[in-house]
Formats: sequence, structure tokens, C-alpha cells
Amino acid sequence: MPQSPEELRTLVEEELERLEYWPELHGQVESVRYGLVEMRGKRVRPVITLAVGEANGAPVEQVLPAALALELVHNFSLVHDDLPAMDNDEERRGKPTVWAAYNEGTAVLAGDALLAEAFRLACTYERSHVARELAHATLGMIGGQYLDTMVERPDLETVHKLKTGCLFYGAVAMGLWAAEVPEDAQAPWRSFGDELGMLFQVVDDILDGDGYVVERGVDGARRLADEAAERCRARLAEVGADTSVLREIVDSLAVRTV
Amino acid sequence: MPQSPEELRTLVEEELERLEYWPELHGQVESVRYGLVEMRGKRVRPVITLAVGEANGAPVEQVLPAALALELVHNFSLVHDDLPAMDNDEERRGKPTVWAAYNEGTAVLAGDALLAEAFRLACTYERSHVARELAHATLGMIGGQYLDTMVERPDLETVHKLKTGCLFYGAVAMGLWAAEVPEDAQAPWRSFGDELGMLFQVVDDILDGDGYVVERGVDGARRLADEAAERCRARLAEVGADTSVLREIVDSLAVRTV
Repeated sequence: MPQSPEELRTLVEEELERLEYWPELHGQVESVRYGLVEMRGKRVRPVITLAVGEANGAPVEQVLPAALALELVHNFSLVHDDLPAMDNDEERRGKPTVWAAYNEGTAVLAGDALLAEAFRLACTYERSHVARELAHATLGMIGGQYLDTMVERPDLETVHKLKTGCLFYGAVAMGLWAAEVPEDAQAPWRSFGDELGMLFQVVDDILDGDGYVVERGVDGARRLADEAAERCRARLAEVGADTSVLREIVDSLAVRTV
Repeated sequence: MPQSPEELRTLVEEELERLEYWPELHGQVESVRYGLVEMRGKRVRPVITLAVGEANGAPVEQVLPAALALELVHNFSLVHDDLPAMDNDEERRGKPTVWAAYNEGTAVLAGDALLAEAFRLACTYERSHVARELAHATLGMIGGQYLDTMVERPDLETVHKLKTGCLFYGAVAMGLWAAEVPEDAQAPWRSFGDELGMLFQVVDDILDGDGYVVERGVDGARRLADEAAERCRARLAEVGADTSVLREIVDSLAVRTV
């Protein structure tokens, strides 16, 4: 009996709570933990990784390091994006951001530490596929952040594909490697991963009233989201596995309100 | 016939020049390349990695990704350390630092990209040992930077051991994994790696007139450096391999003037 998305989310939260950091980080751990655990988060990406692993028959413990690594990379990007030199955000989810709670230098180091801890986790696997996939996802995301913040009028779709899409695609791909799905059986799963980021991003824009809403109006954006959800369901149906939990995740991503 | 340290350094420089970055980084590549290639550097760490690989009979191409990955991590740390929120350095090696040449946000992203590219390179190996060792070295270095910049009067030896020592230790350890030296044959090599960072750091302090020079005077620091070099040579002598190139590196590290 596969676990529900909510059960997987609770598991991720518990594992993040008790994550043991590299001891040589010393006091730097405090701000890392603040950004990762105390500021909370929806934990969407690691839940997808766990669900992909489960659909492919892997025990959850086997997939957890990959799932947590991905969530750490997501949080690394938030900590650095919030910096004054980037988006200059003092608050996130109702709490002071890391640089606002500590200072800018500590926040730069906290992001660096999250990224390095992510790779430490991804490298607990004997083979390097999981970490390799994580490196590719991270590089794409950084390129997206560059286009979004440093380039005037970049192509919206490219920005979203990189900034959001890469980590969602990585969530699926890392789950596949962690579950030891052979490379030649991964293609239909990867097609599903390709669609997920779009779904998440359009709904994000609807909730924030920016991006696709500015470009196409609320109704246009809503239509895009529905189409993206439909494509996700179609891709899932092409995968030869019990994808009921992932189907549930897609359904709730399409109608989420936070 | 093993290559001389100078030949290895030239090779590293050429390989860094023609490094192909992840295409999704888009224009972010420009500042990454500026920090990594145009600002130059001594390339001490990757040369050590290559020399360790060579002493263990590995073809140089097999060890190059590990060596370059380490140099990228070293450069990531420089780019972030130079930021106004950290050491606030506008110049390094006679050139504007990345944030001074571009802007702070671009420099944060350039450091992030260097770190992610480093792991991409370290993950080109089938097994994850090289990348795992890199993650450990990076985390120790970040902890050292934290102690050095955010803590009042930290223990000098701990700071040096982390901030400098971890990457030198990693230079040796990554060379071992890249050359596929079995774990149970690595201990004498790792003892050598342990001593290298101290040698580099004390000489650095002598050249800069800080750190150990403040603590023990110029003569005291010089004595420390000579002792560290002697310990490096002793450890090398215990390794069952032709370590003439590494011996040459140790000798030149002990008397370097830049």
C-alpha cells in the first residue's frame, strides 16, 4: 500500500528535522537549520522523488537521501535569492529570511552549506547518477535565476523552464536513479517530469498574480494550468506502474491555494 | 617519465581555458569564466591531485575531472569570500574581483555556478567517491570560513585546518579515488594530505605578515613552515611509490614567494 502524499510530506519533515549536518560546519549549522527547517516549506519536490521511488518498488529509505538532497538545493536557492543583492526579500512565509534573521555574510555561507550538504547526501549512493542529475538540475536553476534577475525582458518560458522546471524534472529523475530504474526504462518517466514544472509554475503565477497572469490574464493562465495538469496525467498513464499517489499529487498541484 | 609540476600547471590552465560549461547557465558563464580563468591563480591544488594520480599510475585524463573540480571549488570560495558582506575585497591578484567587475548578485550566482559545475565534473566518474570527498572538503572549508569571519577570536589552528587544510587534504584524497587506489591502501597518502595544508598556510602567513606571524613572530612562523615541510617529506617517504614530483611540489611550497 503506497503512502499518501501527506504521509510522505510528514516523513520528509521529520527527516529534515533530524538531519545530521557535517560536524565541521560548526556554528554555521544554526542558520542552515533555520533556513531549512524553521522556515518550513511545502516539500513538494522531495515528496515527488519519494513517490517516484515508491512507484518503482524501491524502499523509501533508499530514496530518502535523494529526496532530501533535492529539498536542500531548493532551500539553497531560496536563501541566496532572498539576499539584498538579489530579490532583497526580508520575509518569506511570514518569517524573517536568513539574511534578515542573521546577516548577509551568514546567509551567503548558509546557502553554500546547503548546496554542499545536498551533494554530500546525493553522494551517499555508491554510483554517482543521483548526484550527477542533481548537478544538472542545479546548474539549470542557476541559469534561470541569472536570466530572471540580471537580464532585461528574458523569455518567460525559458526562465520558468530553468528556474522551476529543472528541479521538478530532477525530482523525478533522481527518484528513478535512487530506485535503480535502468536508463532505457526512464524515458516515459522523464516526459512526466518535463511537464510537472510547468504545472507548478503556472499555478504559482495564478496565486501571485504575476508571470503568466500578466502575459495571458487569469483565465488564460488557468487554462494553461489545466492543460499542464492534463499533460501530466497523460504522461503518468503511459508509465507502466501504479502511479495513483503521483496522480493525487498532480491533482492537488492543479488546485492548490498556497 | 612523470610530468614536472610546471607541466601539470600548464595542463590545468589549458583545461580550464577550454572547459565547457553547462549550456543552461546562459550568460552567467561570463562571470564564472572571469573568476576562474581571467583572474588566474597558482593552481596548486589541482596540480597536487594530478601528481597524486600520476604517482599511483593513473593516466592524467582519468584524474583531470577531479583536479578541475577541486580548483572550481577553490575559486567558488574566493568569489564568495570577496563579497562586500564577507571580506569586502575589490581586488585580487591585481584585478577587480567578480562582484567589483560585475555586481554582487552576479557574483553570488557565479560562486554558486562554480560549486555546481565542480560537482558536475566530480560526478562524471561512475562511482561517487570523488564527489563525496569533494563534498566533505567543501563543507569543512565553509565551516572554516564561518569561524574566520563570523566568530570572535576563533582558534587559529582550527580555522586554518578547515579553511585551507580541507581542500589540500581533498586534493590528495580525490587524486587517490580518481586513480582508483583501494581504500585500504590510502592511509599513508592521507597522512601526507593532512600535513600539506599546514605547510601552505604557514607560508601564506609569512608572505602576508599575518596569522602565525602575529602569533609567533617571523622566525617562529618560519620554523613552523620548515617543520611542516619536513613532515610532508617524511610522510611522502612512507608512501610506496615514486613521489619525486610531489617532493618537488613540497620543496617549492616551502620556499615560495608568491
